[in-house]
Amino acid sequence: MRIGLDVGGTKTDAVAVDDTGTIIGRVRQATGWGPDAVARTIVEAVAALGRVPGVDASAFRSVGVGIPGQVEPGTTRVLHAVNLGVDELDLDTAIGSALALPVRVENDVKAAALGAHALHGGSGTMAYLNLGTGIAAGIVVDGDLWRGARGAAGEVGHISVDPGGPRCRCGQRGCIEAFAGGAAIAERWAVPGSLPVRDVFDAADAGNPHARTLRAGLARGVAAAVRILVLTADVDIVILGGGISALGDRLMADVSAELSASAQASSFLRSLRLDERVELLPAGSPAAALGAALVGASLDTEGALARG
Amino acid sequence: MRIGLDVGGTKTDAVAVDDTGTIIGRVRQATGWGPDAVARTIVEAVAALGRVPGVDASAFRSVGVGIPGQVEPGTTRVLHAVNLGVDELDLDTAIGSALALPVRVENDVKAAALGAHALHGGSGTMAYLNLGTGIAAGIVVDGDLWRGARGAAGEVGHISVDPGGPRCRCGQRGCIEAFAGGAAIAERWAVPGSLPVRDVFDAADAGNPHARTLRAGLARGVAAAVRILVLTADVDIVILGGGISALGDRLMADVSAELSASAQASSFLRSLRLDERVELLPAGSPAAALGAALVGASLDTEGALARG
Repeated sequence: MRIGLDVGGTKTDAVAVDDTGTIIGRVRQATGWGPDAVARTIVEAVAALGRVPGVDASAFRSVGVGIPGQVEPGTTRVLHAVNLGVDELDLDTAIGSALALPVRVENDVKAAALGAHALHGGSGTMAYLNLGTGIAAGIVVDGDLWRGARGAAGEVGHISVDPGGPRCRCGQRGCIEAFAGGAAIAERWAVPGSLPVRDVFDAADAGNPHARTLRAGLARGVAAAVRILVLTADVDIVILGGGISALGDRLMADVSAELSASAQASSFLRSLRLDERVELLPAGSPAAALGAALVGASLDTEGALARG
Repeated sequence: MRIGLDVGGTKTDAVAVDDTGTIIGRVRQATGWGPDAVARTIVEAVAALGRVPGVDASAFRSVGVGIPGQVEPGTTRVLHAVNLGVDELDLDTAIGSALALPVRVENDVKAAALGAHALHGGSGTMAYLNLGTGIAAGIVVDGDLWRGARGAAGEVGHISVDPGGPRCRCGQRGCIEAFAGGAAIAERWAVPGSLPVRDVFDAADAGNPHARTLRAGLARGVAAAVRILVLTADVDIVILGGGISALGDRLMADVSAELSASAQASSFLRSLRLDERVELLPAGSPAAALGAALVGASLDTEGALARG
């Protein structure tokens, strides 16, 4: 049995997965702030999983952790997980001995991509497009992450699609993330609120012109990312996830309208049937935690489970 | 010994490659117009290779053909090779029995990508960006073409990078191909000449403002394609080839300046060192014909030669 954890800025989602890849236990709890509290959160979540009826803690064989930060390739070292208050943390050192289990760590978007691919049937080519504070994608081919040459694969958020577009925090103008990233939208909306992107949608529905511009920009950015992922890597399916995807059908309707408009303008785009290739990760999906479990599983099975 | 042919709109480049992947003979000849003449060109080029000193025609084992058209997956059928006057042509039927050799066919950009990868050492992840009448890329990973789910991998020419940009023949605005494709530049330059892109460069050097706009657009389009290939697929190297790459250092200087400007604006882009990752295919490179030979070789070695 493998454990997978998706350590998010507010909540940690933990699952226990059996050898067939089926989730047999799941717990969620608040994430602590800073390296010590994050490590404690993970250890406590694993212990809580062991108390779930039907889950046998003595059968745990590996722990995979998906975390919103840079993971040094081939290590368990996390850098710059700013939303967790973590500048640097070696998770094997921090939790490996407490759990007495092998630990593997992966960036949360990449882990979610693996999990979304497994939930989607585990075959073919897929991109998982994470719409959160920032925008990034994970590309999965037959159960394996496309890592690229230097770790920048899927960084579509910082592709500029409009030289006259808004300034991105990366320094460029018109990046996809400057249009569609949660932080960029909140900054341009500049109205306090706990769910600024939802507020923008509501205000746009009420006719606020600034909100309508921001909302249209979000759809433009997401549609541009979908086109880029298909026209470059030719993924079969693009699955939308991340905090902004909680807007559900309201978001999908905008993105579909944007993709339909470009398909009407271009017979080439029309032939790609992009609107049929975009799907929304269901709310509450355990994709990220499941993907983390698959990352951990690769420790003892060399990816056989991950590849289904 | 394997034969590879790059059938171009004006010339056909043919090479004989030994089992170590070394080119031991090369001939070039004019390409005929229309299906029958194209088939005859290929048969004659193979015969001419057999007359090259040191090349033993009785040792020929396969023929690979790179051709500027759509190749029906898994077949030897070419569709819409408009620059050759070919609407439809099954090359195995047309030349297989005349040559008494197994035939394999690949799109010319994909063949050139395979060949450029082999000439570059045959390992790692590379994109070959073809700057010709249109713009398209081939992505190669450890000697194998990245084909994608539905055959659209590398179609970066039809990604829009400016909603206010010129109208593309595909129907969108601001496609990379509308900025950097030879046909689009020639159409907007609208001055008769056999080498319109070179004419644009010369006129820009002489201060013509319209030419300067077009020339700047070419560099912008190429730089955008490089960024997209690295930020999506994270290829280690982007090699520029195709007719427009004959501009050599004049083109590279413009593209490098464009990449440097964006690196200055964005620390994220700066960290990717894009200007060090772009290379020009040398003039007269046999990459496309070599790649076609590798495609043919996969017939009897299942890609072992192609993977070096």
